[in-house]
Amino acid sequence: MNIKVICHLMGLILVLEAVFMVPAVLISLYDGEIAAVQSLLLTITAMAAVSAVLLYTARTRKRSFYAQEGFVTVGLSWIVMSVFGCLPFVISGEIPSFVDALFEVVSGFTTTGASILPDVEAISRGLLYWRSFTHWLGGMGMLVFLLAVIPQGPGAGYSMHLLRAESPGPSVGKLTPRLGETAKALYLIYIALTVSCCVFLLLGGMPLFDSVCTAFGTAGTGGFGIKGDSLAGYSPYLQNVVTVFMALFGVNFSIYYLLLLREFKIALLDEELRLYFGLMLGSIALISWNTVPLFGSLREAIHHSAFQVSSIMTTSGFSTVDFNVWPPFSKAILLGLMFVGASAGSTGGGIKCARILLLMKELRRNIRKTMHPRAVRLVRINNRGIDEQVIQNVNAYMAAYLVLAGLSFILVSLDGFSFETNFSAVAACFNNIGPGFDAAGPMANYSGYSIPSKLILTADMLLGRLEIFPILTLFSRHTWDRSK
Amino acid sequence: MNIKVICHLMGLILVLEAVFMVPAVLISLYDGEIAAVQSLLLTITAMAAVSAVLLYTARTRKRSFYAQEGFVTVGLSWIVMSVFGCLPFVISGEIPSFVDALFEVVSGFTTTGASILPDVEAISRGLLYWRSFTHWLGGMGMLVFLLAVIPQGPGAGYSMHLLRAESPGPSVGKLTPRLGETAKALYLIYIALTVSCCVFLLLGGMPLFDSVCTAFGTAGTGGFGIKGDSLAGYSPYLQNVVTVFMALFGVNFSIYYLLLLREFKIALLDEELRLYFGLMLGSIALISWNTVPLFGSLREAIHHSAFQVSSIMTTSGFSTVDFNVWPPFSKAILLGLMFVGASAGSTGGGIKCARILLLMKELRRNIRKTMHPRAVRLVRINNRGIDEQVIQNVNAYMAAYLVLAGLSFILVSLDGFSFETNFSAVAACFNNIGPGFDAAGPMANYSGYSIPSKLILTADMLLGRLEIFPILTLFSRHTWDRSK
Repeated sequence: MNIKVICHLMGLILVLEAVFMVPAVLISLYDGEIAAVQSLLLTITAMAAVSAVLLYTARTRKRSFYAQEGFVTVGLSWIVMSVFGCLPFVISGEIPSFVDALFEVVSGFTTTGASILPDVEAISRGLLYWRSFTHWLGGMGMLVFLLAVIPQGPGAGYSMHLLRAESPGPSVGKLTPRLGETAKALYLIYIALTVSCCVFLLLGGMPLFDSVCTAFGTAGTGGFGIKGDSLAGYSPYLQNVVTVFMALFGVNFSIYYLLLLREFKIALLDEELRLYFGLMLGSIALISWNTVPLFGSLREAIHHSAFQVSSIMTTSGFSTVDFNVWPPFSKAILLGLMFVGASAGSTGGGIKCARILLLMKELRRNIRKTMHPRAVRLVRINNRGIDEQVIQNVNAYMAAYLVLAGLSFILVSLDGFSFETNFSAVAACFNNIGPGFDAAGPMANYSGYSIPSKLILTADMLLGRLEIFPILTLFSRHTWDRSK
Repeated sequence: MNIKVICHLMGLILVLEAVFMVPAVLISLYDGEIAAVQSLLLTITAMAAVSAVLLYTARTRKRSFYAQEGFVTVGLSWIVMSVFGCLPFVISGEIPSFVDALFEVVSGFTTTGASILPDVEAISRGLLYWRSFTHWLGGMGMLVFLLAVIPQGPGAGYSMHLLRAESPGPSVGKLTPRLGETAKALYLIYIALTVSCCVFLLLGGMPLFDSVCTAFGTAGTGGFGIKGDSLAGYSPYLQNVVTVFMALFGVNFSIYYLLLLREFKIALLDEELRLYFGLMLGSIALISWNTVPLFGSLREAIHHSAFQVSSIMTTSGFSTVDFNVWPPFSKAILLGLMFVGASAGSTGGGIKCARILLLMKELRRNIRKTMHPRAVRLVRINNRGIDEQVIQNVNAYMAAYLVLAGLSFILVSLDGFSFETNFSAVAACFNNIGPGFDAAGPMANYSGYSIPSKLILTADMLLGRLEIFPILTLFSRHTWDRSK
């Protein structure tokens, strides 16, 4: 294990985080929120000090860096980022409990959007900005950002391992031969889409601060609202803008890259893209039909169904209405979409359409193989054979997913909430959605859970965003075995 | 596809089923239940006629029989068996609706034990006997019985394919080199254990009829009670007998075979056996601790926890108390056990401990492989390397399981019952348990569901018992493609 390289990268991450906190300081200064300014500056100082120590002590020329180091770096850096990221809330007293603040910031970075705040409008604007910005950072990933901005010498062998460990989905596609370029391309697309979203919101008359925060939450498919009623208070036009952009941010970003290269046919024939939009439109149709009696008109039903399906499937978690009171059939579909999630290589969470596609194709291969044992078949997606190791990884991921989510559900049940609350809370945190049903529903929040349960749900959010293995690696005896 | 061999086997199955119905006729005659006698005799006549036609038209010397035919035979024969098996209930008018009667008998054969009967004590004893006997038959499997009793000429190549398609678990172990002998050994162990269970119940003062029916339900890990309150009305001794025997019938039968061969060490070191009893004892401990306040004494809490854990984990579904009112933590553990299920090669359902073990080992291999990509490792259980094809099959099974159970849950939600009811109903039917929670709980029944939902749950029970593939094969375009 090359501890020095890991420390070096963590130092860089902290520098970046400190820089990203500066706009929050400016907003707090402008608003005259002295407590917020002080807490942010204290945190920035702490991060600067720690990163200076890390960068100084971890000078090394030994560049050996393998998959294991990639997992450990990603797992550790997300935990460290979250611990420092929640300090302004604790120091300023706006979220007095450390566990609550950690929950909130992990919820931010993992683009979950689950909140323990009983009254979000009581938080100062500077910290609200930081809270929403964590969505944006976590959506594409801080380490991917690092890869995009630091020059990579010929010896920097960590790029691929970091990209693989931090990016969601069963396999990572290099958009360009050089990884730094790939990371840059991803972030440029990301920034362009975020700015467009913000402009469309401003055009609809949303105030600047609201537009920026909402655009961050939409881009990262996070879902933190800055109002107590999420997006219910905004105009239908604004809600529609968010519907469309959530759906767009749930698309695999390599599709946008293909579009930029004018490879329209390849992009539009992509099997994951078709599954993603197919499931989305099918669900909107079914839920609209099911909720017409509730809304009184088909138009209203389609409006809210489209918003909610887009929000849940991309694992954003914004809401315009209390979908907890929708009929059981609609809620069951939403629950299913919570697990399916968005596309691989997007900012969304969940199991991802690419994995579902792969599992279904593997299933079909298996049924055929049982009938004709001697036939040898490859699992193909987009006419390309999929490596058996990728299939094995997806299966291992599913097994780990089921066991960890199941255990979380059992442990969280100790708090005594209803079956529906606990089940949907774990589903909503593990899949990085935010609101679940019942006492964890869109018009409620997670403040009622006990401290142990909050910590379990916090862990679930990290496991979900980083797709389990980076976190498991941290806890594997194998990783810290010095004899290796 | 060798349709003639399939028809021949179906004919034999119907002959057997007709023979097995005779005791019910005798009981009904003894009780003077004329309507029941008539309905049973009519059904037997119908089965005799259909089987005569099948056996006559399907004479063939062509013995080619592959895995595909094995799946189709098993899938079809279970459906045909259930359709004929439910006729006595419909004809006698004791269950007037065909869909209800089919639900009840499929629930019997699949050893689920879910019931649509609002008042089970209103059913005549002859039909109650038949209802409980379907558990016993379905537990080990009708086709396995066929293999045990019919002489197998050198050309009968179907044995292995049938055993594999009907027996639960990721892979089938041949106990003896000859398959007919294996089937015989399985049924002899099964009969011996069932008789022991019955004797222990009689010793506790349970009436003969009750003892026989309860022994059938316990042996098949079915769970049909013949009383309205399941086993709540019997003495603690009788409840304890059932606790122990349920646990015993959830053990892989090859363990008993090893014990008979005096291979004690191999038997007791079996990894699945350890996981099975480990999970069972752990769950009993946790639930006892959690339910002490409810029962007032640790002794009572352990008594009922042990019964309920054994009942749910072996997927029997008997109950002594209304576990629907237990604390959420206990219910969450029970829900987890519903999915885990019993051992492979037992009469229990669920995903099976062997598959869980295999998935966990594959997961561990995968994590290590990610760290050290060049290491080649076999997944080993009981120190034997597991064939990669078996691992692939387990993964495909899990994928199919999740998708089918998920779709069932969404469709059943159209009926408007609560989240907890629908989720646990699908879990309880797919895993062949019987009672779920809330409106599908142990003191309720499935009569409230609509006809489409009952049919979906009926299909789930078959999918669960036959482990999906035989039923999927029936609906695969590939199977009926004549050009192959």
